[in-house]
Amino acid sequence: MLIVQKYGGTSVGDLERIQNVANRVSASKKEGNDIVVVVSAMSGETNKLVGFAEHFSKEPARADMDMLLSSGERVTASLLSIALQEMGHKAVAMTGRKAGIVTDKQHTKARIETIDPSMIQNALNEENIVVIAGFQGVNEHGDVTTLGRGGSDLSAVAIAGALKADLCEIYTDVSGIFTTDPRIEPKAKKLNLISYDEMLELASLGAKVLQNRSVEMAKKLNVNLVTRTSFSNEEGTLITKEENIMEAPLVSGIALDRNQARISLVGVNDRPGMASEIFNTLAKAEVNVDMIIQNEAHDGTTNIDFTVPVNDLHEAKLIVDGFTKTGDIGADTYDENICKVSVVGVGMRSHTGVAAKAFSTMAVENININMISTSEIKVSMVIDEKYAELAVRSLHAAYELDK
Amino acid sequence: MLIVQKYGGTSVGDLERIQNVANRVSASKKEGNDIVVVVSAMSGETNKLVGFAEHFSKEPARADMDMLLSSGERVTASLLSIALQEMGHKAVAMTGRKAGIVTDKQHTKARIETIDPSMIQNALNEENIVVIAGFQGVNEHGDVTTLGRGGSDLSAVAIAGALKADLCEIYTDVSGIFTTDPRIEPKAKKLNLISYDEMLELASLGAKVLQNRSVEMAKKLNVNLVTRTSFSNEEGTLITKEENIMEAPLVSGIALDRNQARISLVGVNDRPGMASEIFNTLAKAEVNVDMIIQNEAHDGTTNIDFTVPVNDLHEAKLIVDGFTKTGDIGADTYDENICKVSVVGVGMRSHTGVAAKAFSTMAVENININMISTSEIKVSMVIDEKYAELAVRSLHAAYELDK
Repeated sequence: MLIVQKYGGTSVGDLERIQNVANRVSASKKEGNDIVVVVSAMSGETNKLVGFAEHFSKEPARADMDMLLSSGERVTASLLSIALQEMGHKAVAMTGRKAGIVTDKQHTKARIETIDPSMIQNALNEENIVVIAGFQGVNEHGDVTTLGRGGSDLSAVAIAGALKADLCEIYTDVSGIFTTDPRIEPKAKKLNLISYDEMLELASLGAKVLQNRSVEMAKKLNVNLVTRTSFSNEEGTLITKEENIMEAPLVSGIALDRNQARISLVGVNDRPGMASEIFNTLAKAEVNVDMIIQNEAHDGTTNIDFTVPVNDLHEAKLIVDGFTKTGDIGADTYDENICKVSVVGVGMRSHTGVAAKAFSTMAVENININMISTSEIKVSMVIDEKYAELAVRSLHAAYELDK
Repeated sequence: MLIVQKYGGTSVGDLERIQNVANRVSASKKEGNDIVVVVSAMSGETNKLVGFAEHFSKEPARADMDMLLSSGERVTASLLSIALQEMGHKAVAMTGRKAGIVTDKQHTKARIETIDPSMIQNALNEENIVVIAGFQGVNEHGDVTTLGRGGSDLSAVAIAGALKADLCEIYTDVSGIFTTDPRIEPKAKKLNLISYDEMLELASLGAKVLQNRSVEMAKKLNVNLVTRTSFSNEEGTLITKEENIMEAPLVSGIALDRNQARISLVGVNDRPGMASEIFNTLAKAEVNVDMIIQNEAHDGTTNIDFTVPVNDLHEAKLIVDGFTKTGDIGADTYDENICKVSVVGVGMRSHTGVAAKAFSTMAVENININMISTSEIKVSMVIDEKYAELAVRSLHAAYELDK
């Protein structure tokens, strides 16, 4: 098999752990696999460099930041290559440039545009283990760029896609994707298999493991993604296309998102295009609106409720207040003490009653549901934040996820 | 003026010192100069990375070492660029690649082959201060290479040459080149001006400041080189071509080299080509032979004395022993307790009696001279190591270098 393995910062956090990674890679190579390894910077290294830059400037030039931050992964990649060679393997270390990763010009949050895997392929053909510095590429001018948060995962998935690898293994300190957050529900079980779409909906469960952009790219490039831990031999979770999952469970997991705030608009002027105007203004300001509920009041005006990430709340308030001042909105209020609980599963497509069970579970626990939104594979409910853990545990039990 | 400034590891050893460098660069820019800055890695950083590599392997692959070690200078260059921009300057950081430095393929000790300064020139034309990661280039395959010891100085000199800069300032923690080692003779004086050739002969005096390869390149490219300290505003020493030095002093300095060993060959077979065979064999083994003295014995054989760096002594012994075993040499002996004292000055060319004064000074002090070698601008004497300091101080006084 051709396997792309990606090791995150904690997995290469010190020299012993880099040796541990070398041992893992070596074992996989000896099983007869072709291996490409993508590495992050040693944990703490990137933060240290960011701290250095911030010592000099609150807003350092982003091209300089890329030259600065891309150095961490180069260190890890060359050290791992050295360790593998010492173990008797042929190995070669490559920068993002050498690996053929070309990005757009957005320094510090570049998007991968193309990958020319020919140098990697040549090195593999010569029996090398190829070790690649993650998180980085070059733009059309040949300047180093970095890919932003989760960038090394993205490097790994993109390379796996370009090489048509059989597997892309993402190694972290977490052993996989769980049915819910084990800190809330200790009975949470690790999933063996999950579809891309479920993973995207369960983002909060995988937040420590995988960024959505990596899952989206894996889906687009049809890369079989495995998240597992580098600290034991425990099997991880395979994220793959739905067709590969023979018998999907009704519900795969319960996600919790505490990072939401609710904005309520009362007495919105009911003229056509009013809602569109409000939400277009929010979109232009890059405020990420999630759930929206609209209902008509009896006085010819409308009430609109919507949620935004807490980080966007300040910006959203400013915009909404503007509409209130001009009289287009009667009044607006905010609530940060909410959370969003989601029940996710591709099995919902073919089964009814999943949403009904969620609502009745909430009712049994006397939890009031403020907002509801559903998709083909998800039921999301906004509730009072104080009920967050209770809701997650009740739903986890109701769908028998601990079985 | 167009000035290339190079700051070594101690000058950029921590964040405060990098800010100090930014202040110096800023001041020079404000005086109306165009500035290109070449930086080393923060002191200790390169050794740390070498230590990391040696944790994994005694002989790490040299291409990997280059990818590893070149990261240190990238960090310093981007941080300095950020600091300069924060001070209101236009600045841009460049890797060796971007600066157009192309080397041969000798990883970890590459030689600069060409420099295409067009990216630097473009950035200067747009009023930028250009900050370049020293010590590194790329080979014809585009792989990162490093230039070995003193590599950042070499980067600076080569860039100054390619840009036809007015000045190349090398900043270290030493304020310049002295008439002799101030630890031996506290009356040693800093030189304002010295020729390339003198500097090359005085290598031991500049050992902490400049590698000979940098001086040689400065001479070849006709670069005016200044060594000075980044820790004060003290003027440094200008190293330039002899024609620029109006009135050269008779003697510029006294150099001491303790790192020499003497090999004495007694009863060397006097057949033609014998000496050539011995020294060719030594040369092939990269033993660096310095002084050679040969004289005929009365029995038809020859005696040959020569010196080698202490580091090469072991290799030299093996080779010489080989000749002794075959009978080509009667006997060989070694002496590590010697040193070489040199009197250097371009003024010797036009003045007689410089060598005679050196010999008589030794005689007055009862110091026996074992070997003598002279060049147009230098008189070197091999003496017993225990007289090293006495010889230096006596010669320093005899040529009135403290005046």
